[in-house]
Amino acid sequence: MTTRAQLRGTIVALCGGVGGAKLALGLARVLPPGRLVLVVNTGDDFEHLGLRISPDIDTVLYTLAGLNNPETGWGRRGEAWNFMAAMESLGGETWFRLGDADLAIHVERTRRLAAGENLTQITRGFAERLGVAAELLPMSDDPVRTMLETDMGVLPFQHYFVRLRCAPKMRRIWFEGGETARPNPALMRLFADDAVDAVVVCPSNPFLSVDPILSMPLLRAALESTPAPIVAVSPLIARQAVKGPAAKIMAELGFEPTQRAIVEHYGCLIDGLVIDDADRDEAHRLGLAVEVTRTLMVGLDDREALARRALAFAARIGPRVGGRVTHAR
Amino acid sequence: MTTRAQLRGTIVALCGGVGGAKLALGLARVLPPGRLVLVVNTGDDFEHLGLRISPDIDTVLYTLAGLNNPETGWGRRGEAWNFMAAMESLGGETWFRLGDADLAIHVERTRRLAAGENLTQITRGFAERLGVAAELLPMSDDPVRTMLETDMGVLPFQHYFVRLRCAPKMRRIWFEGGETARPNPALMRLFADDAVDAVVVCPSNPFLSVDPILSMPLLRAALESTPAPIVAVSPLIARQAVKGPAAKIMAELGFEPTQRAIVEHYGCLIDGLVIDDADRDEAHRLGLAVEVTRTLMVGLDDREALARRALAFAARIGPRVGGRVTHAR
Repeated sequence: MTTRAQLRGTIVALCGGVGGAKLALGLARVLPPGRLVLVVNTGDDFEHLGLRISPDIDTVLYTLAGLNNPETGWGRRGEAWNFMAAMESLGGETWFRLGDADLAIHVERTRRLAAGENLTQITRGFAERLGVAAELLPMSDDPVRTMLETDMGVLPFQHYFVRLRCAPKMRRIWFEGGETARPNPALMRLFADDAVDAVVVCPSNPFLSVDPILSMPLLRAALESTPAPIVAVSPLIARQAVKGPAAKIMAELGFEPTQRAIVEHYGCLIDGLVIDDADRDEAHRLGLAVEVTRTLMVGLDDREALARRALAFAARIGPRVGGRVTHAR
Repeated sequence: MTTRAQLRGTIVALCGGVGGAKLALGLARVLPPGRLVLVVNTGDDFEHLGLRISPDIDTVLYTLAGLNNPETGWGRRGEAWNFMAAMESLGGETWFRLGDADLAIHVERTRRLAAGENLTQITRGFAERLGVAAELLPMSDDPVRTMLETDMGVLPFQHYFVRLRCAPKMRRIWFEGGETARPNPALMRLFADDAVDAVVVCPSNPFLSVDPILSMPLLRAALESTPAPIVAVSPLIARQAVKGPAAKIMAELGFEPTQRAIVEHYGCLIDGLVIDDADRDEAHRLGLAVEVTRTLMVGLDDREALARRALAFAARIGPRVGGRVTHAR
């Protein structure tokens, strides 16, 4: 309640896949229509079987449309696998599982891209058709590709993540195209118009899901210079990621999987961090505003409660005067 | 039995979709492996949803692999439709029905074409994976597109056939690219090596399914000059097509739907025609060798019996001395 009283403009949430989508759903449920803009990682996007796959966009879309598969964290619920079985019988690649219904979004996206539409237009069209009220923006319409240097060589993200199940040891992560990609124009307009009231960094993997978004210099500069408070929700609970390889990757890159490491990773970009009750002891050693609450999202109520908590936290922090770091524009 | 005694080389069968596939299956079952080469119409091929669809190749492949849907005459048996339902919910095109398992062949074909393989290589790969022993050759690796001038304007084949369900009145049919397309090299080699013992024109629609094959001047010339007997199995029974718009189209183009019209259509190209018992009265007025038998293929036994009958008929006609028409090479 206090949230709505204090934040009246647009809430921008940066998110990747599963963890991000859960909070995105919470935000979508507690905010009135038209106030939420979700900026989704496209660094995981890839071409597979000739189709353009946008895993994080689809996870967020399906989650907000109530179509997601809660067991897998990807794809659609109640999915059938006739396509994969037939593909296997024809000798095609089957390491990346595409369900029969899920296929439609990849085929139609690929077709529309080839017909000249951009990813923003296509995603907006899908969201409308699926009854998703929140605005869902790909971080960019230009290609940015998350690349990984591992002990098994340089790997595109999905090969590391899906084909090799995160087994390779991570050495370095970079974002091909990030330097030159134009951030989503609709998002940049919001910042330019000073229409953003708060930015929430969802509890997605900071290294793999949020960093691709931050790899675009113009978007990073907009975040650094916006007066809107920026709060992150930590993906770690008691040195573990709820899902995915965040803790493993942090260890491999030489970081302790602690809240401190998350704060150091985001640096001056964030004004506050939401951490789990389990990490309460760390709260006073983090050197920025901290909100301690339950961050594990099991049910819908958890998602809504965490969304409210993050928004209230941002509202309490309030607008910043001046930029965040010296090189901000 | 006599067939095998008399024809020892390769049997080439020209075929389109459903009717052609039925006889193709019969031929595949009565001929030893390695003796049958099926030349399949690709004039119906088109791009749809960004995928390359080859309807006749798939019908023949599925039929020979025992995967075909006998009710529809296209697609796979036991098919599910989750993809189409999801596509509809996203606002995509749904007039051309693609089943969940069927999709795999279109996606994989499209991918392999983009990767530089040609349709012949891809089709051979699929046939091997599906356990099809007969050689299945696309009529050409170059694009030939069946185009129709109708009372509803100029239509690509699938728009006429599927989207508009053959309702428009046919005025003219032509084959874009046919003049310049290179016929399948493996087929041309067989003719060049004089390895063809007989050619069977399957009971596919002469105007829509066989004519695209014959539209390629080099293939037509090879057929005109081969000494191998060429026999056609008529698609008409008592002035009706078993399936499809052959009789309707013939009427619209100003032909009576008779065996005589079929003979006149193929002209000097064929040495004999197989017609149904129902048309026995026409047999003696056709001016070429005629075989009268049951041409309706309901069961597997019908397919095999008709295949044996057509082969025995060709064997009886025997090789021709000299070319068929004056402009043959």
